[in-house]
Amino acid sequence: MAKEVKVLGAWPSPFVMRPRIALQLKSVDYEFIEETMQPKSELLLKSNPVHKKIPVLFHNDKPVCESLIIVEYIDEAFSSAPSILPSDPYDRAIQRFWAAYLDEKWFPTFRGVAMAPNEQGKAAGFEQVREGLSLLEDAFDKCSKGKPFFSGDKVGYLDIAFGSYLGWVRVSEKMNNIELISKEKTPNLHAWAERFCADDAVKNYMPETEKLMGFAKMLMAKHQAAASS
Amino acid sequence: MAKEVKVLGAWPSPFVMRPRIALQLKSVDYEFIEETMQPKSELLLKSNPVHKKIPVLFHNDKPVCESLIIVEYIDEAFSSAPSILPSDPYDRAIQRFWAAYLDEKWFPTFRGVAMAPNEQGKAAGFEQVREGLSLLEDAFDKCSKGKPFFSGDKVGYLDIAFGSYLGWVRVSEKMNNIELISKEKTPNLHAWAERFCADDAVKNYMPETEKLMGFAKMLMAKHQAAASS
Repeated sequence: MAKEVKVLGAWPSPFVMRPRIALQLKSVDYEFIEETMQPKSELLLKSNPVHKKIPVLFHNDKPVCESLIIVEYIDEAFSSAPSILPSDPYDRAIQRFWAAYLDEKWFPTFRGVAMAPNEQGKAAGFEQVREGLSLLEDAFDKCSKGKPFFSGDKVGYLDIAFGSYLGWVRVSEKMNNIELISKEKTPNLHAWAERFCADDAVKNYMPETEKLMGFAKMLMAKHQAAASS
Repeated sequence: MAKEVKVLGAWPSPFVMRPRIALQLKSVDYEFIEETMQPKSELLLKSNPVHKKIPVLFHNDKPVCESLIIVEYIDEAFSSAPSILPSDPYDRAIQRFWAAYLDEKWFPTFRGVAMAPNEQGKAAGFEQVREGLSLLEDAFDKCSKGKPFFSGDKVGYLDIAFGSYLGWVRVSEKMNNIELISKEKTPNLHAWAERFCADDAVKNYMPETEKLMGFAKMLMAKHQAAASS
């Protein structure tokens, strides 16, 4: 029998990890449909005609797009415990604020530096990335209220939003021989990142650093070939 | 007695209209604190240190930032009827999708063209804006299900997200002598825009086109002076 829930995506995408972790938290069984993007599938073009991006969640064949919107949808449509967003409206607003900051400010800066083909400006770029991490270090303090995750005792919305980038952070640290989330400067985030990656809802979806690095190198070579052709 | 709810903002900002309309819908009394941005006030810098942008909502002195996050907060914190977001999780996801599209894609394109100092590329830019409006015309059809607003019988989340831009759309139409939301090409949106602007929850916050045009001209002169200095 066809599954009620499907996720269209690809393993290296941080955005695709988000609905997968959310579904795992909710114990929802689903089918994963691999999208190769070469070229983009008919299913992707049809179900997300505006952005043509993964992930797409299908629930009884109805598509939902945009990873953070999907995570909220999963939380609302599968109301079984645990909740992914906090119950308090103010806590929800704060988590939404930082998730939006990550997607709209921090990650675009990070990606820009990480994918830059040459060293020029990289140091300044990584400094900006670190400034963002220092804001998130403070946010962890306020959100977690002394508990192991942004969301308290369990992985929740902001943990998923931020944690999905950790694979790429590790690749970038390794490729550039730097530390971004360091024990010294961002001890909260450093310890949280280890807990997040080891969490039962996460560990099956967090890509191995070596494998993701291979993919990153392939991607960068492609970008450079496209830029010089 | 100091009011429990305050909004820090400025009248020409579409983003500031959003919490004001939401509070009006919920019949929540609040204090409006005018932010002149020249220079940015201590209150703004302290309450939104990450983005330094208006609006900021204060609820019992606790700040909430980012206009759409504030609207969701108002809906959740003041649970009195009517609801601003639809109750069905799928309808909520669709409204969130289009609201994000408006803020992340459509409005940046619109602002780029509208604020462009010369005619070069303006026609192509406005064509892109119109393509977006045609997507929103279809979205209206699907969301409203034959009712007067995106949200059905009453102004709701996506109405607020989109409607807050209408003042600036009108200014741009007038200054460039063009039609963007036209009766011929986007009849749904054309009729909806009139209904939205006339709605009791909206009409006090929708700036008069002439007044907003005066503000726009002043802003453009300032931009040009800054660009040529």
